[in-house]
Amino acid sequence: MKKLINDPARVVDESVEGFGWAHADLVTVHRDPLYVVRADGPVQGKVGLVSGGGSGHEPLHAGFVGAGMLDAAVPGAMFTSPTPDAIAPATLAADGGRGVLHIVKNYTGDVLNFETAAELAEADDVEVRTVVVNDDVAVEDSLYTAGRRGVAGTLCVEKIAGAAADRGDDLAGVAAVAERVNANVRSMGVALAAGTVPHAGVPSFDLTESEIEIGIGIHGEPGRRRVPMASADEITEQLTGPVLQDLGLGEGEQVLLFVNGMGGTPLSELYVVYRRARQLVEAAGASVARSLVGSYVTSLEMQGASVTVLRLDEELTALWDAPVRTAALRW
Amino acid sequence: MKKLINDPARVVDESVEGFGWAHADLVTVHRDPLYVVRADGPVQGKVGLVSGGGSGHEPLHAGFVGAGMLDAAVPGAMFTSPTPDAIAPATLAADGGRGVLHIVKNYTGDVLNFETAAELAEADDVEVRTVVVNDDVAVEDSLYTAGRRGVAGTLCVEKIAGAAADRGDDLAGVAAVAERVNANVRSMGVALAAGTVPHAGVPSFDLTESEIEIGIGIHGEPGRRRVPMASADEITEQLTGPVLQDLGLGEGEQVLLFVNGMGGTPLSELYVVYRRARQLVEAAGASVARSLVGSYVTSLEMQGASVTVLRLDEELTALWDAPVRTAALRW
Repeated sequence: MKKLINDPARVVDESVEGFGWAHADLVTVHRDPLYVVRADGPVQGKVGLVSGGGSGHEPLHAGFVGAGMLDAAVPGAMFTSPTPDAIAPATLAADGGRGVLHIVKNYTGDVLNFETAAELAEADDVEVRTVVVNDDVAVEDSLYTAGRRGVAGTLCVEKIAGAAADRGDDLAGVAAVAERVNANVRSMGVALAAGTVPHAGVPSFDLTESEIEIGIGIHGEPGRRRVPMASADEITEQLTGPVLQDLGLGEGEQVLLFVNGMGGTPLSELYVVYRRARQLVEAAGASVARSLVGSYVTSLEMQGASVTVLRLDEELTALWDAPVRTAALRW
Repeated sequence: MKKLINDPARVVDESVEGFGWAHADLVTVHRDPLYVVRADGPVQGKVGLVSGGGSGHEPLHAGFVGAGMLDAAVPGAMFTSPTPDAIAPATLAADGGRGVLHIVKNYTGDVLNFETAAELAEADDVEVRTVVVNDDVAVEDSLYTAGRRGVAGTLCVEKIAGAAADRGDDLAGVAAVAERVNANVRSMGVALAAGTVPHAGVPSFDLTESEIEIGIGIHGEPGRRRVPMASADEITEQLTGPVLQDLGLGEGEQVLLFVNGMGGTPLSELYVVYRRARQLVEAAGASVARSLVGSYVTSLEMQGASVTVLRLDEELTALWDAPVRTAALRW
């Protein structure tokens, strides 16, 4: 597997350095330990939002640092949780005097390291609350997880909690909004072909030309089942069905429909998936009030996609629509 | 090669249909013939901008339809020029009474078909001017081109000409700005692995695990040379060197540096390329005033990237910074 990198040991540092140079109007990169903060932060009087996780899922999370979303992001090594000694100073750097919300994808390492970091930050008198995102309906427990995994729905939590912080909610309020998004968002993904972690040099798993993996995780960890390759519509039905069922979507409800690329799938194909997913949401009696299509929560160059559905109400819709200005999401 | 499609013969129609549903606030999709127009267009009193070309390069061009950029985009079949019978009505639909600029990538089929469409539109009393984009420094003539090919620099032409139209320039003025961007933008790309056209079912070309193609075209057409796989820094030097040399960049000049992904390369790797390209621009005595990093002018799921440098002046910088609201580019 050929990659546009120099050295597997330096790829995260070099990539984040390039990111910081390209978006110096939005972010500042701190090195040793590595974390990314808003260039204009901390914003005094606003609750701070910090997320992070293993690298390889770009633009998540550093691409979402900026006005209306995250105050800091902490990139770990590839597919490896960031350590508390990076998360803790990022938390202090994000604090504008009203406390900090940690938004953590549900992987055992991430949860533990953010927990330790929260204790360190609280020892420095910064109040920390945590929301653990677990939107993936595919499997109950997994290779790196007790309980459901956090996947593309994390973007929805970060965007909407960011807007709640922006309008002046206090820490308990921002945490409650984040929990409400997490409670109302579900995702499921498929892989057609694996990505390759640079230092491994070989694909994370093997799929033949005639099979796909339904319910794949964003680290290539096993999903529900391997099935024969099928049409985009059939695959989309296998993803969207469990999402809608688990969400228990009722007649007349409004949703955000988010079709996410895993990194190596062309945008044109994501819109083919979106088309069928939308038909399925509508067949369930709901309507699609907001949409997002693109590769936002990736797994290196994995080929595949995920379908995320977020149940909206008036408040969540308004918070989704609120202005956001980051490298990867902007309106 | 597995793909998230239903039928190679329907992939463009279904993808564009999904695109139209997802972005109904921005665009309207016209079927038979297929083209995409601004939902709020035509904008009376504004010069209209129309582009198009073979599909497979998404988000180019339909992703750039909206305020501050294109008024219409015409997607052809995969890697196949759109026909005059689609371009001509798109041109009429984009006309707000002050004429229409055609922005055409330099491929023989595109140039001929836009020319015929311009004649048809002029028979309907719509004045048309054309700018042919040819920013690729890799080769002089190519498989589908007499003269240099149009590649990622097309985005720069569409964005900046769109802003010129928005500020009220007349057709000659918008065309002059577009020509000025084209005269000051250069690109070169590399492929690590080919994409697969759906109806072909096999990769467009073969590269072994130990070789790459420098100067690749966005349809996988041959570049300058095949060379052994190298580090990201070395590859970036092979792309950026010829771009800077051809542009004849002088000491103290300011540029837009645009690192574009070909579709199957992770964003993290694009920032590694950006990092080195920026060092090279600065080593040449210029400075990077604006940056863009992402997969905007793609070749299905081709693995690789291109480096684009646009020489800026005060006017081009202001036009680049002007608001844009499209599916794929927004600020």
